[in-house]
Amino acid sequence: VTHSLITFLTDYGWSGGYVAACEALIAALAPDVRVLHLTHEVPLADVSEAARVLVRVAPLGPVAIHLAVIDPGVGTSRRALVVVTGRGDRLVGPDNGILIPAAEALGGLVSAWALDLERVRTLAGLPATISRTFHGRDVFSPAAALLSRGLDVERMADPIDAATLARLTPPVLELGPDLVRAEVIEADSFGNVGLAPTMAELPFLRETVRVEVEGEEQLPWTARPVGTFADLASGELGILADSWGQASLVLNGASAAELLGATRGSVVRLAPTGPTEKGTRR
Amino acid sequence: VTHSLITFLTDYGWSGGYVAACEALIAALAPDVRVLHLTHEVPLADVSEAARVLVRVAPLGPVAIHLAVIDPGVGTSRRALVVVTGRGDRLVGPDNGILIPAAEALGGLVSAWALDLERVRTLAGLPATISRTFHGRDVFSPAAALLSRGLDVERMADPIDAATLARLTPPVLELGPDLVRAEVIEADSFGNVGLAPTMAELPFLRETVRVEVEGEEQLPWTARPVGTFADLASGELGILADSWGQASLVLNGASAAELLGATRGSVVRLAPTGPTEKGTRR
Amino acid sequence: VTHSLITFLTDYGWSGGYVAACEALIAALAPDVRVLHLTHEVPLADVSEAARVLVRVAPLGPVAIHLAVIDPGVGTSRRALVVVTGRGDRLVGPDNGILIPAAEALGGLVSAWALDLERVRTLAGLPATISRTFHGRDVFSPAAALLSRGLDVERMADPIDAATLARLTPPVLELGPDLVRAEVIEADSFGNVGLAPTMAELPFLRETVRVEVEGEEQLPWTARPVGTFADLASGELGILADSWGQASLVLNGASAAELLGATRGSVVRLAPTGPTEKGTRR
Repeated sequence: VTHSLITFLTDYGWSGGYVAACEALIAALAPDVRVLHLTHEVPLADVSEAARVLVRVAPLGPVAIHLAVIDPGVGTSRRALVVVTGRGDRLVGPDNGILIPAAEALGGLVSAWALDLERVRTLAGLPATISRTFHGRDVFSPAAALLSRGLDVERMADPIDAATLARLTPPVLELGPDLVRAEVIEADSFGNVGLAPTMAELPFLRETVRVEVEGEEQLPWTARPVGTFADLASGELGILADSWGQASLVLNGASAAELLGATRGSVVRLAPTGPTEKGTRR
Repeated sequence: VTHSLITFLTDYGWSGGYVAACEALIAALAPDVRVLHLTHEVPLADVSEAARVLVRVAPLGPVAIHLAVIDPGVGTSRRALVVVTGRGDRLVGPDNGILIPAAEALGGLVSAWALDLERVRTLAGLPATISRTFHGRDVFSPAAALLSRGLDVERMADPIDAATLARLTPPVLELGPDLVRAEVIEADSFGNVGLAPTMAELPFLRETVRVEVEGEEQLPWTARPVGTFADLASGELGILADSWGQASLVLNGASAAELLGATRGSVVRLAPTGPTEKGTRR
Repeated sequence: VTHSLITFLTDYGWSGGYVAACEALIAALAPDVRVLHLTHEVPLADVSEAARVLVRVAPLGPVAIHLAVIDPGVGTSRRALVVVTGRGDRLVGPDNGILIPAAEALGGLVSAWALDLERVRTLAGLPATISRTFHGRDVFSPAAALLSRGLDVERMADPIDAATLARLTPPVLELGPDLVRAEVIEADSFGNVGLAPTMAELPFLRETVRVEVEGEEQLPWTARPVGTFADLASGELGILADSWGQASLVLNGASAAELLGATRGSVVRLAPTGPTEKGTRR
C-alpha cells in the first residue's frame, strides 16, 4: 500500500537546515510523496507536547505516514519504531512514548516494529555510516519514505511486543466532587491555559469556579464558564471548552497564562463557588 | 471550476499544531490541492497587517482559493465569508475587512456570500459539534477545501450585499504640498519603515525630506531619496520606493525603525528641505 | 530538461509575505513544480551560514533548481547567477559566494551564467519595472520557475568565466600536531558548537582535549571525545563528530555555546591533554 502523505513533526526548528535535510532525503527517495509539516517548534526534547500535537492533528487528516522525531535518546539503545494503526497509518519515531496516543486515536495500535538501522540504510541506498546524533535524517526519514512507497514494514523492521513500548506519564488529574486538581497541558501562543480534563469531565460544569495555581502566592481567582472569548468582559477570567474539548482558562484578548502565572506543568485547583458569582477576583 | 491551490494565512503561529490541523483537514477533504502558506506569523488579531500581506501576495499567484483567518471575533455573530473575485478567485475568511483589499486587487469583488456553518459541516462530513473558538479548522478550512474541489459556493453559503461587509479603517495619509502626514504601515524584519503613500504619490519626490515621528521627542532627521540600500552611506537615512512601490525610510544594513523609534501605527511627518542637504541629522 | 523541485533558501523570515510573494510567483509561472523550503531564518545577510545550509542539504535531495537569495548587494551591479552542476542542478542566486560550495558538492561547477534581468522579465511576462530592492521576487524566482519548466539557461543568461565568481572567505582553521585553531562555523538551536574541521581531520582524535575560546577570560575546559550526547554525564563537555562529520563541542541536554561563551565566528583552541583526564574543568 502506498501512502501519498507524510506528516512531519520535530523539535529541530527551521534554522540550520535539519528539517530540510530530512525533507530533501524524502524527496530523493519518494519524489511523489507530499510532506505536511505539523510543526518543528516543539520545545527541545518535549516528547509529551509533541505527542499532544500528533494525537490532535493526525486524526483530522487522511491515512498517512506520520514521522515524529523528538529524540533526546538518539544514539543510545532506545529503539526506533514503526507503529501500524487500525486505520492503516504508519507512525515512525523513537520509542519514547511520542507515537502511542496518536496510534490509539487512529484506530488503535495494531502492531509495533523495531527498525533495523542497517536494513533501512541498505534499502534506502545510503552511505555506510549512520550518524549517532541525527537519526531523523539517517533512519526515520528514509524509513518513512520507503514506507510511503509501499515497502512492507517487515522488510526493514522486526515485530516487537507492544507491551514493551515506552509510554508517557499521564498528566496530574484528580476529579473530586468539590475539588479538581489538573495539570496545565498547554499554554498556547494566545495565552490560554489548557487543562488536563475535558470540559465535559469537570464535575461542576456550569458553575463559576475558584481557581488557584499550586505554588503561586496569590489570592484565588474565579472563572466563569463561557462559550467563547467574546462572552467575556475585558479582564474577566473565563473557563471554556477549547477547540479540542479541553477545559481551558482564558481571557478575552489577553494572556490568562500570564495573569495566573501558569505554565505547562503547573497544577491548577478548581472548586465550585456557586453559580451566581461573577468571574472576578474574590 | 476546481482550483489546484489554496493560499493560507493566519495568526496562529506554527507551534501548537493549529495550522497543521487545518492543513490536515484540507488534505483529507481535497487530497490533490496544494497549500501555499503565506505566513502564520501575523501579530495576534492584526487584521490590517494580514490584509496587507494578502493584497500584496495573492495577485502574484494563479487564480486560487485564498484562506485568510485572523479572527478575533470567532464565536460571535460576525459572518463567515466567501468573496468571489473578477479573476475567479474565492476568498474565504471572517467578515472583518481582511478580504476586501485583496478582492479589489484580484479583478474586483464580484459577489459576497455568508457561509452557512451547518451546510459546510454536513458537506464536509464533519462531526456534529462546531467549536466556538476555532473556525479556522471547523468552518473556513473545510469550506476552502470544498470550493477547491469545485463545489458551487451557493451550496454552502447565501448571497449577501457587498455594501454590508466590514471594512478596515484606512491608514492616516495627508498629502499636502509642503507637508505629508503618513502612517507607518509596515516595520519589517529588516527594520524598514514602510509608509502609507507610494513613492510616486509623494509631492516632493526627488528632494531630501525632513522626517519627524509624531510623539517622539527628538530632533528631526533628514532622509535622502535613493534607489536602493547600497546607495546609502553607513548610518545615512534614505527614502526609497520599496519593492511594492511604497515610500519607505531605510538604512543600509541597519534598522531605520529602531533609529527613528517608529513602529507600525506611528505617524511620520515628511517635509521638503531642498535638494542639496545631506541625509544626516540636522 | 524540466525539474520538478525548487529548493528555496532566504533570510526573509516568514512574516511580511516576502517568501510567499516568491512562491506565489513561482506557482503562477510553473504550476506543477514543488517548492521545498530549506529555511528562511538565516540571520540577515549571512551569506556564509546560508552557503553552509545549502551545501549540506542540496546533495541529499534529487537533482533540482536551487534558489538561494541572501542578497545584501541587491540593486548594485553585483551579478545575478545561474550555476549549472555536474549532476544537472541549476543554482540561482546572487554572485556573492553563496552558490559555490553547493555547486562543488553537486558534481562540480560545470558552467556559470549571468542573468539578463530584462530577458528574465520578458520571458516571465512580468511588469516593465524591476524593483531595485527585491530581486528574489523580480529576478531570481522567475528565473528559477522558467528553468524548472525546461527553458535553456542561454535564453535568459550569458555565459561568464567561473574564475570571476565571488567566493566566501574560508573559516579560520590551523591544524597543528599539538594545537588546533578552529573557527566556530555553527552554533545551532541545541547549543552545539560546530567547528571548522571534521572530526577525522583533528590530529588528536581519540584524546581528551583542552578547550579555550580566544578572547574569553576564563580557565580552559576539557572535552572528552564521545559518540553521542547520551555518553556524557550532566554538565560534562564532550567533543563528537556531528551528523555532518564536523567536530562539535556539546553538552548533554544543555547549551555548550552558552557554557563556553562561543558564538559563530569565535575561534576555539584545542590541544591534547592525554587520554586519561575527565572532561571537567581543570
